[in-house]
Amino acid sequence: MNADEKYLTPGGRPGPVVREGEFVFGAAGLEHGHIADMTRSLLEAGATLKWVYNPDPEKVRDFQKKFPQARAARCEDELLSDPEVRLVAAAAIPCDRAALGVRVMESGKDYFTDKTPLISLEQLDAVKAACARTGRRFFVYYSERLCSESAVYAERLLADGAIGRVIQVMGTGPHRLGPPDSRPDWFYRRAQYGGILCDLGSHQIEQYLAFSGAKDARVVSSQIANYAHPDYPELDDFGDAVLAGDNGTSHYFRVDWFTPDGLRTWGDGRTFILGTEGYIELRKYMNLGVSGEGDLVFLADRSGEREIHVSGKVGCPFFGEMILDCLNGTQRAMTQEHIFKAAELSVKAQMLAQKLE
Amino acid sequence: MNADEKYLTPGGRPGPVVREGEFVFGAAGLEHGHIADMTRSLLEAGATLKWVYNPDPEKVRDFQKKFPQARAARCEDELLSDPEVRLVAAAAIPCDRAALGVRVMESGKDYFTDKTPLISLEQLDAVKAACARTGRRFFVYYSERLCSESAVYAERLLADGAIGRVIQVMGTGPHRLGPPDSRPDWFYRRAQYGGILCDLGSHQIEQYLAFSGAKDARVVSSQIANYAHPDYPELDDFGDAVLAGDNGTSHYFRVDWFTPDGLRTWGDGRTFILGTEGYIELRKYMNLGVSGEGDLVFLADRSGEREIHVSGKVGCPFFGEMILDCLNGTQRAMTQEHIFKAAELSVKAQMLAQKLE
Repeated sequence: MNADEKYLTPGGRPGPVVREGEFVFGAAGLEHGHIADMTRSLLEAGATLKWVYNPDPEKVRDFQKKFPQARAARCEDELLSDPEVRLVAAAAIPCDRAALGVRVMESGKDYFTDKTPLISLEQLDAVKAACARTGRRFFVYYSERLCSESAVYAERLLADGAIGRVIQVMGTGPHRLGPPDSRPDWFYRRAQYGGILCDLGSHQIEQYLAFSGAKDARVVSSQIANYAHPDYPELDDFGDAVLAGDNGTSHYFRVDWFTPDGLRTWGDGRTFILGTEGYIELRKYMNLGVSGEGDLVFLADRSGEREIHVSGKVGCPFFGEMILDCLNGTQRAMTQEHIFKAAELSVKAQMLAQKLE
Repeated sequence: MNADEKYLTPGGRPGPVVREGEFVFGAAGLEHGHIADMTRSLLEAGATLKWVYNPDPEKVRDFQKKFPQARAARCEDELLSDPEVRLVAAAAIPCDRAALGVRVMESGKDYFTDKTPLISLEQLDAVKAACARTGRRFFVYYSERLCSESAVYAERLLADGAIGRVIQVMGTGPHRLGPPDSRPDWFYRRAQYGGILCDLGSHQIEQYLAFSGAKDARVVSSQIANYAHPDYPELDDFGDAVLAGDNGTSHYFRVDWFTPDGLRTWGDGRTFILGTEGYIELRKYMNLGVSGEGDLVFLADRSGEREIHVSGKVGCPFFGEMILDCLNGTQRAMTQEHIFKAAELSVKAQMLAQKLE
């Protein structure tokens, strides 16, 4: 095993951390397009894709078009029983993600699921128990931080004390719905997708914990609404929440499905991090009204204001770190406590939400 | 009386609405620098300044340096008993603003106070009763909307349906504290300044009511903190709140005293207005990291994204409208119900606030 942290090059773009065959994974749960991004990122970090499994052969064929090296497993067990496989990446329907994770971990493999990883406290308990019982890892693809170079760069600024002590994190996660019938049925069923605060909100809460350093938090208030989609009564098209952390920081986030038709991309996601000596604004995917790329970091501190373009400059070290964590038993990519806390608070924000209107 | 609405030129910068001597006012309560801005705006709208009164002769002299036409009244009564005076503009200590307003209205004049107009529900009741008893008007200088051309322009966009139905308003009102001893004692005494949500928050709540069209709202949650000013334990240096309106809309705002030293101006105030068909972002006083003026309006709608510079282009019609309201008995500038509701919710947000840390 030549896996080594020297492959991670802090300050530059991370490259592969393992060589061909050193870290083998399979893909399952092809219900959300994120599985292709997850797979691609794992491949860039050096992982080797061996299997794909899904009950729907059409989804398997689509996946194989993108990743021809993936062999189609005849059943889930064919994937889970292969001792060469170290990790299973999956984007199942949200309500099924926890149970799949338990099966994966029971088979002795680590699990990497699309967010939101689970949609009830019972599922959280089951996942925690499976982790404890098996010693395997449960990772979540929180792409709005892990795949955002601006977010990665912000973490470095925070670690350097660029804005003093962090006080508050405020985030917006608008998304484009697109033609309603382009979405699968489960997208509109609360028991399957989990509600907007649990789904889109999980990105926000995870970022809050990461940026603020809070280890736990209380849901101070949360709200959901369906303002403009009466044909889909179980869809929350708006949600927001306030959280108060155990370290005195707090968090507000707003998520919605109202990205307007004229916007150049799927959502004008922003993050504002307020500190005692300055603040940071991330414009993750675009700069509203201004042409050009995303991944913009705006910093105001004691000495001035800066606009920093980080696209293509810092990369996304999570994937390599996760592979090394799996191989070496470390917790550098993300601790399990952090993952479970983000999931718990996402579920609670949804459970406690008051309906607007 | 030649006051006429034709002087208001919608779409352009409003000019004077009255001629010299047609609308006479006096200034009192010189405790906050806003009084100079209030006076200047009244003068630009055509009003005639006759008196200034304050118990502190030094403050009177400072005021007269800026406005030499103001005659120093020997006592408050000399100002209040002059039948020529139609309105008294004042920036007293927040805890004293309501009582001064009652005295002004009892003297048969209209009152124009700096925000926050009052700091308790008892004061609100007293003001409402005085308005009803005297038939006089109680106006508030909510400068973050009334003196912001970007906010004025946003109201026009909303009235034109540019973003469909308004769903939510999110605002940030960061302020620079400056050298702590440059502030008067009352600035740090809660019983005098009223708390950050009542003080700075009143701007935000007033904007929410104006932009959303809500006539009433409920304080869903509110928080205050003193993160970095232990020498001033009664100062809230951070506050935020969520409000749910009676028309299904909602509001989040965050206010603080953490504008960093390196920022070019006192605060990077923003307003985000989310609608079913688009959204608006106001960068009121500056464009972070980008040189140039403030009063930027960013609009995303069905057809695209726009960056609109409105500084110097739309003006601030409030002052002329207020003068005409006083003269004509209309309620175009701002209804009394709106003013009282903004004041009530600001007080309630403060009363209900949970302390962070």
